[in-house]
Amino acid sequence: MNKVAVVMGSTSDMPVMQDAIDILKEFGIEVDVDIVSAHRTPEKLFEFGKNAHKKGYSAIIAGAGGAAHLPGMVASLTPLPVIGVPVKSSNSIDGWDSVLSILQMPGGVPVATVALNGGKNAGILAAQIIGTSDASVLDKIVAYKESLKAKVIEGAKSVNGKQ
Amino acid sequence: MNKVAVVMGSTSDMPVMQDAIDILKEFGIEVDVDIVSAHRTPEKLFEFGKNAHKKGYSAIIAGAGGAAHLPGMVASLTPLPVIGVPVKSSNSIDGWDSVLSILQMPGGVPVATVALNGGKNAGILAAQIIGTSDASVLDKIVAYKESLKAKVIEGAKSVNGKQ
Amino acid sequence: MNKVAVVMGSTSDMPVMQDAIDILKEFGIEVDVDIVSAHRTPEKLFEFGKNAHKKGYSAIIAGAGGAAHLPGMVASLTPLPVIGVPVKSSNSIDGWDSVLSILQMPGGVPVATVALNGGKNAGILAAQIIGTSDASVLDKIVAYKESLKAKVIEGAKSVNGKQ
Amino acid sequence: MNKVAVVMGSTSDMPVMQDAIDILKEFGIEVDVDIVSAHRTPEKLFEFGKNAHKKGYSAIIAGAGGAAHLPGMVASLTPLPVIGVPVKSSNSIDGWDSVLSILQMPGGVPVATVALNGGKNAGILAAQIIGTSDASVLDKIVAYKESLKAKVIEGAKSVNGKQ
Amino acid sequence: MNKVAVVMGSTSDMPVMQDAIDILKEFGIEVDVDIVSAHRTPEKLFEFGKNAHKKGYSAIIAGAGGAAHLPGMVASLTPLPVIGVPVKSSNSIDGWDSVLSILQMPGGVPVATVALNGGKNAGILAAQIIGTSDASVLDKIVAYKESLKAKVIEGAKSVNGKQ
Amino acid sequence: MNKVAVVMGSTSDMPVMQDAIDILKEFGIEVDVDIVSAHRTPEKLFEFGKNAHKKGYSAIIAGAGGAAHLPGMVASLTPLPVIGVPVKSSNSIDGWDSVLSILQMPGGVPVATVALNGGKNAGILAAQIIGTSDASVLDKIVAYKESLKAKVIEGAKSVNGKQ
Amino acid sequence: MNKVAVVMGSTSDMPVMQDAIDILKEFGIEVDVDIVSAHRTPEKLFEFGKNAHKKGYSAIIAGAGGAAHLPGMVASLTPLPVIGVPVKSSNSIDGWDSVLSILQMPGGVPVATVALNGGKNAGILAAQIIGTSDASVLDKIVAYKESLKAKVIEGAKSVNGKQ
Amino acid sequence: MNKVAVVMGSTSDMPVMQDAIDILKEFGIEVDVDIVSAHRTPEKLFEFGKNAHKKGYSAIIAGAGGAAHLPGMVASLTPLPVIGVPVKSSNSIDGWDSVLSILQMPGGVPVATVALNGGKNAGILAAQIIGTSDASVLDKIVAYKESLKAKVIEGAKSVNGKQ
Repeated sequence: MNKVAVVMGSTSDMPVMQDAIDILKEFGIEVDVDIVSAHRTPEKLFEFGKNAHKKGYSAIIAGAGGAAHLPGMVASLTPLPVIGVPVKSSNSIDGWDSVLSILQMPGGVPVATVALNGGKNAGILAAQIIGTSDASVLDKIVAYKESLKAKVIEGAKSVNGKQ
Repeated sequence: MNKVAVVMGSTSDMPVMQDAIDILKEFGIEVDVDIVSAHRTPEKLFEFGKNAHKKGYSAIIAGAGGAAHLPGMVASLTPLPVIGVPVKSSNSIDGWDSVLSILQMPGGVPVATVALNGGKNAGILAAQIIGTSDASVLDKIVAYKESLKAKVIEGAKSVNGKQ
Repeated sequence: MNKVAVVMGSTSDMPVMQDAIDILKEFGIEVDVDIVSAHRTPEKLFEFGKNAHKKGYSAIIAGAGGAAHLPGMVASLTPLPVIGVPVKSSNSIDGWDSVLSILQMPGGVPVATVALNGGKNAGILAAQIIGTSDASVLDKIVAYKESLKAKVIEGAKSVNGKQ
Repeated sequence: MNKVAVVMGSTSDMPVMQDAIDILKEFGIEVDVDIVSAHRTPEKLFEFGKNAHKKGYSAIIAGAGGAAHLPGMVASLTPLPVIGVPVKSSNSIDGWDSVLSILQMPGGVPVATVALNGGKNAGILAAQIIGTSDASVLDKIVAYKESLKAKVIEGAKSVNGKQ
Repeated sequence: MNKVAVVMGSTSDMPVMQDAIDILKEFGIEVDVDIVSAHRTPEKLFEFGKNAHKKGYSAIIAGAGGAAHLPGMVASLTPLPVIGVPVKSSNSIDGWDSVLSILQMPGGVPVATVALNGGKNAGILAAQIIGTSDASVLDKIVAYKESLKAKVIEGAKSVNGKQ
Repeated sequence: MNKVAVVMGSTSDMPVMQDAIDILKEFGIEVDVDIVSAHRTPEKLFEFGKNAHKKGYSAIIAGAGGAAHLPGMVASLTPLPVIGVPVKSSNSIDGWDSVLSILQMPGGVPVATVALNGGKNAGILAAQIIGTSDASVLDKIVAYKESLKAKVIEGAKSVNGKQ
Repeated sequence: MNKVAVVMGSTSDMPVMQDAIDILKEFGIEVDVDIVSAHRTPEKLFEFGKNAHKKGYSAIIAGAGGAAHLPGMVASLTPLPVIGVPVKSSNSIDGWDSVLSILQMPGGVPVATVALNGGKNAGILAAQIIGTSDASVLDKIVAYKESLKAKVIEGAKSVNGKQ
Repeated sequence: MNKVAVVMGSTSDMPVMQDAIDILKEFGIEVDVDIVSAHRTPEKLFEFGKNAHKKGYSAIIAGAGGAAHLPGMVASLTPLPVIGVPVKSSNSIDGWDSVLSILQMPGGVPVATVALNGGKNAGILAAQIIGTSDASVLDKIVAYKESLKAKVIEGAKSVNGKQ
């Protein structure tokens, strides 16, 4: 069965990461959630990173704020695709630190970075990765994109009449 | 067979994108390369984006600079995972425009963004996506990561003696 | 008759774009309003962009936030002048992403960018474009500028006495 | 006859502004060029700004670097559409000062800002403004956009074979 | 008698500029206050700037936000020292536009820029300029600096005991 | 006689500060030049700052790069107006550190900040301060501004013919 | 006995600096607290900086906002390690000025800079410095790090069950 | 004997880190140098970080560029003080990524960050830490600071005569 791991550096990242969990469940994908702090639980980080590819995950979503090292360190430890979510945490300078410390990985160790606080997009990206080898998930993504379209078309009606 | 599309907005992006092509070929993955300019060839963009998932690609790598719309527009048109490479083109303001216009996609339409000029990492990420369903590619990624390690260990020798 | 199209990526952009609509109506210019999401309704974007110059518009005003691709993509599809309004949306990093992804268009495809959240100025600019061939609109702009002046002169009175 | 004024704050801005002049001439549009320094020749700025709309210009293109006040001050003085070109001059901080002091105009006085050093796009935008009331210029813009397309398609051939 | 002009682009700048007025009055310096909008009342700007040095002012304090052209344009018109106050107005991008468009003046036309929203420091600076030729004002500045010192020493007491 | 002190944190700041010295000499103002490093010679800084107003200076020009503390620390020690020149030194991050650590002084202790590397403007500003009480210097500033104007008018001729 | 000095530029910095004081007391380290304003009490700064190493401090923690000169100036005066805390004060531009004017010290005079508003980390760093020669403090740091770990592990339980 | 570990993420960081090594040797402090890549050799990082405090180091200096995780990850693993050197590597965006991903550590795990490319200051800071318990090193630092002073005084002579 399709499965994605969602980890984050702190419980305070949960509101952003919940968006990833929700959309994955909407796509019928199993989700394992955990708190793994690169800076406070480095041993847990290592154990998680070293073993993730043995647990059947297709992708790992990792979210963190400030000097956000979790996504990059997980990527250093696993051969799986890692999706990084920069979180605008309370100790962040307008989100720039979170974005840059996740995005600017050196050659050899990529992190698939999404927008600041982009938990939902991280979930969709994980589903798209699964969709490359599971046609039923690909179909759900196609349907999801159609539903986005329908909502915009619907919303446009209110605007057309509102001048 | 595994196949990845590599598209870019201009021939001037080729030096950065060649890194993606090279590493994919190193992993034995087939690559289709094309110039697709969101702003100068919008029809080609549409045709490419609408049909990409019918051509057997597992992922699309799209690179562009300045107001870099190509990766996001491809992502709007395809259900496939799209990897965006911000290119520090000659008309870019230190790369910030390329990074932000690729990274900051709205909820619903993710682009897996890599570092500025990170063509190589885009290729590795595409391979990792393929590796989620192709064990032989996964093995190559594991081996690649070991080779990175070996190079660092080797390089460390020169430093240890150089004080 | 003079006519301007006002499009935006999301209904949440409406408060900013309403300023454009209001000032255009004040100048007696007809306005067509629609929601056109580059990322969620790319087909609608294409149809809109390809046909806009056949509908009698003198200019197109396009507003969007975050990775704001709508103005640039409309500009890629139409020969009409496109005015871009960077919106400081909820997913924006202090507005920088909206500004840069609208402003930094490549050579060949301009977008006339106004200030962050500058809906009103977008409307005035569209009126100025119309004014280049319609003397009655030019007169209204001259009168409008005089009214701005009068308001400042009036406001200065309160300050002169307030020390 | 169609005519555009191109003004700039210093002779050192000429390389960037020449791109505007060249493309306008390519479109068969007459161009008046002058140096008007907001800070060193304020009287010339006033005279230019106050009288520009009496000289038959359809648009004014103004380029400047650093604390770039020329475009905004011209816009304060004329009812014509003003296109601003932020120039990355030698005294500029990576272009940010030029961009922000042209773009961020207050409500009431727009400047149609193009990309940093975007002289060519300023010229095209002026042509598009003229094209709203002159079908022959509109046709030239349509043709110009086709030529951009053709060049990309041509360039793509070299890339397709270069792997 | 010593006199300073305090001008600002909009009545909304008054809260920041009032700090300049208050400290100048505290130093016994006469203050003339006015609203002079570079973009909405350019003629008033010109008249003010051209004649300021005939009215007995020792310095001009000019405050504005966003694309803040007032201080630099006054400086272009007067031989008097001009002190610029960047105001973080509602249309400002975190104050960066105000700061850069006042600070980054070209060689030949300086503006003495103070901190963002630094109205008080603008007033003190004007007093210091007057103090260079008026010993009684210099004495007041010396006394003012002593009072700042005394307040810190006093405040330190509360902290010493608060652990 | 009129006199200005020009101090800088390092001999490497001399190329920028020479512009201040040159223009002051052009205006017939006496200049004392010294290296005063806030971080390496704090005692010299203190002695300089505490005694500057007893030496007949009308203003102090202080230039420094990186974490540029010299201008602000001199301002803390003297009642004289202090003009700060942010220098883009080799250890500076694009000049931002120099600018912000000079400009953003707390309420009570202003530094009259000029543009990055704006040595010349610092000199002119010092002359303008002297000009508030010395009519002959004011006349020279008026003449200097006329000469700037003349040079622009002259330069404009070459451009008018160059299309 | 182990002792650390905690100084700050203003009483308004106390909420951030209290975190340093609290953690140091938790580690059983004596703390002397004082307000020392670089800009308003430069003599106190000098006296403090010149004598600190005679008072038995192992480290000095200095916090300030805006153009934050206190940490660097203390470092210029003392041979002791100085830890700088950038405070996001009310006059700060999003904290960038505080960070850069503390961090970017020239070669020869280091300041050990911690995160924006990072009072707690400054305290821990001071304790770590003491721990290099006091095994009992080192033990407390080891225990503290274990307690951080335990809290994350505990927090993770709530998340595991919350999907 | 006093000993400091100097680690860096890549051999390309050596030019910056050599400054740290050189100054430490100048102070007579033993230095162990190694390449430890957080992203390519995570196991080596773990082993190094977990055991560093058993090897007699008083401090660890860690330098890295881009998404620079090495200093923070070492800090997560050791109770020793960790000094971070942001390196402006070839893949860095003007150094901002290196600075922010080292500086902005979460509460609990400090990294003593020095200026961009500030290898020398990292070495001095390590010596100052050792100096807190070794009077002979403290004396050397005092002497070093005197030598800095002497050099400035000497350099000032050339400037005094150069006008």
